[in-house]
Amino acid sequence: MNEQLAAAWAAEKLKSLGFENVHIETFPLVAWVRGTDHGEIVSPNTQPLAITALGQSPPTPAEGLEAEVVVFPSLDELKEAPPGSLTGKIAMVDRRQVRTQDGSGYPQVAVGRALGAGEAAARGAVGYLFRSASTDNRRLPHTGTVRFTDGRVPVPAFALSVPDADQIDRLIALGQKVRVRVFSTAAYVRDAHSQNVIAEIRGKVRPQQVVLLGAHLDSWDLGTGAIDDAAGTAIITAAAKLIRDLPHGPQSTVRIVLFGSEEIAQPVAPVQAAGGHSYVNNHKAELPLHVLAGESDLGADRIYALALPKSVAPESEFAKTVYRLLTPIGVLPASELTEAGTDIGPSVDAGVPAFQLSQDASRYFDMHHTADDTLDKIDRQQMDQNVAAWAVVAWLAANTSVDFRTAPQPTH
Amino acid sequence: MNEQLAAAWAAEKLKSLGFENVHIETFPLVAWVRGTDHGEIVSPNTQPLAITALGQSPPTPAEGLEAEVVVFPSLDELKEAPPGSLTGKIAMVDRRQVRTQDGSGYPQVAVGRALGAGEAAARGAVGYLFRSASTDNRRLPHTGTVRFTDGRVPVPAFALSVPDADQIDRLIALGQKVRVRVFSTAAYVRDAHSQNVIAEIRGKVRPQQVVLLGAHLDSWDLGTGAIDDAAGTAIITAAAKLIRDLPHGPQSTVRIVLFGSEEIAQPVAPVQAAGGHSYVNNHKAELPLHVLAGESDLGADRIYALALPKSVAPESEFAKTVYRLLTPIGVLPASELTEAGTDIGPSVDAGVPAFQLSQDASRYFDMHHTADDTLDKIDRQQMDQNVAAWAVVAWLAANTSVDFRTAPQPTH
Repeated sequence: MNEQLAAAWAAEKLKSLGFENVHIETFPLVAWVRGTDHGEIVSPNTQPLAITALGQSPPTPAEGLEAEVVVFPSLDELKEAPPGSLTGKIAMVDRRQVRTQDGSGYPQVAVGRALGAGEAAARGAVGYLFRSASTDNRRLPHTGTVRFTDGRVPVPAFALSVPDADQIDRLIALGQKVRVRVFSTAAYVRDAHSQNVIAEIRGKVRPQQVVLLGAHLDSWDLGTGAIDDAAGTAIITAAAKLIRDLPHGPQSTVRIVLFGSEEIAQPVAPVQAAGGHSYVNNHKAELPLHVLAGESDLGADRIYALALPKSVAPESEFAKTVYRLLTPIGVLPASELTEAGTDIGPSVDAGVPAFQLSQDASRYFDMHHTADDTLDKIDRQQMDQNVAAWAVVAWLAANTSVDFRTAPQPTH
Repeated sequence: MNEQLAAAWAAEKLKSLGFENVHIETFPLVAWVRGTDHGEIVSPNTQPLAITALGQSPPTPAEGLEAEVVVFPSLDELKEAPPGSLTGKIAMVDRRQVRTQDGSGYPQVAVGRALGAGEAAARGAVGYLFRSASTDNRRLPHTGTVRFTDGRVPVPAFALSVPDADQIDRLIALGQKVRVRVFSTAAYVRDAHSQNVIAEIRGKVRPQQVVLLGAHLDSWDLGTGAIDDAAGTAIITAAAKLIRDLPHGPQSTVRIVLFGSEEIAQPVAPVQAAGGHSYVNNHKAELPLHVLAGESDLGADRIYALALPKSVAPESEFAKTVYRLLTPIGVLPASELTEAGTDIGPSVDAGVPAFQLSQDASRYFDMHHTADDTLDKIDRQQMDQNVAAWAVVAWLAANTSVDFRTAPQPTH
């Protein structure tokens, strides 16, 4: 599998960059393989649809799945539909994602991707369509994971590109019944595995204390994963490499974790981050000595804010030092931490204090989880600013005796 | 075929709008059908490519076509390769399209799409890849037509999306040999036909004199044809409908022609516009009485300039009147006509004077000939401005006794 090739490549790369204790920690997994998928409107006229199966979706029958579409403005309206009211139908959730700097338009839409198919199936639907979680109107569907838990029956689930969702809306607004045919050969691989890749700069004074920098090495198959999350992997690695190359090493250990299988985690609680849980299981004894943790997983655009744990008073020496260094490169204090990260989530739940370097997500969800996630979308100048900010925070955290646990931690 | 459904629909629509003499003029054609196509890099690593077969391209063998890629910066460099130097290879022309307001970046790139495969085959190549004629970096290939004439051997020819061309460039820059596999089931239909749809507002004073407004009804299969050229069809129809609904009709006849099969015309001379030639053949006797002709085929964005035939002096009453009406909506005088249009080209060659309403093409080639050519890309306010400008020019041309033939006409 490509993810395992990536992990082996990353471990070699981290060794060649001079990191210590480089190793791979494997964990078991049920993998999902897309196969091929396509779809079309078959009535009132025929038109190909730009669609893609959602991760974890079961396949359609070999001859495809054809049914009338019933559109709901959001997951909430779908959940108000009575049991049986969608029998034989394909339900569609049609909520538009709002473009915001902090990416806050995403979760309220992504919940429809995660849970819509299960809720539709519980009301009799035979399939599910989802207007892509997207801030753009490219003719490319945005994939992502669907979840069938709590006894929900798995039904084939697909993301539609925004223009295709618009087209279905227009036909329905004209009073037409819209029938679609969808096709998928998705499959599960039950005995697969994934892995976290770990590398360190050992601390010279307190090697048992760990500053954890996280990103994820897996990516969706449609694109190349340049922004999600090769960018984060590169940012934390480059920041750690800057620290590695300083004449005097850090007092505490700086540890990079390149997590596996982040993309199959769910955007709704409880988060099932396989790589993040595997890390906690393997490093349970060390967690009380983890100084601080952060995760880079929102592309490569500029960082505009840093949130520190609540224990760090704005007038403290640590805060004053970090913001004195970061303000000149455009990073302002954030009043609170809103999202530590999917992969470090289990560590944060286990009591590890977290920081958050907030990236400008204004254009991130134009490309997110699509074929358009390619290297040309990376702005090198903004990426360099990310590296600088991560290096500053990691270095200062590895050279302070401040205990970031002295106030209650926000949950991730 | 969808184009024939569109023609029948358009004829009914034009009748219902109150136009006169609505009819369809059929002409024979060898049609090209895409079938399915896909491709991938197979070495030095495997990666799917976002590609699409170019129109008129022959299919690959059933098992696909695999070969090493040889990249040329432009068609000129490809043409400098010695005979036999590409034997067994897939040639690629890699020229980037420059974004310009007037679309002038397009022809110098599109010539590589039209002629590159034939030139490559003449030097031994077994296939051809073309960096899409595109001003954007979406992961969507831009199709278009390829031409095999002058004894050129047809070889399978594909457009690559811009990020995929970038990826091949990067691998080659790293010193790698790049092998790709491409696949296409394209086919020809020898006994097909296409058609022009014609409608009129008969002139009240000089009905035998014709002001010709053109657009094309066919579109590429990947998208829905909203910008290319449903937009132009709508613009000229709406402009003519405004004239149709005036209390007093025009003095000369205003004729709409919705041409068929524009997309299989070539962007290089001699232009083989089947619909345009069919119109000239069927209306040869009327052409000397055609007053003026124009074509709308560059999307729906705002018009910024009008070029009139050279016979119209800037200080003439006609010019002063038309620019007095158009300047307030943002249309300035253009010093010369640069491109009358593909479909009216044969009429212009036969001596019909032409005008040119130049549209802002800044974003047109982001979507042109891709799956992204959908209705959401149309800006209604800008489209309304187009309709107003076309109505003004058509009305004034149909109510003037100026002879636009009194000076030499520019060729299209």
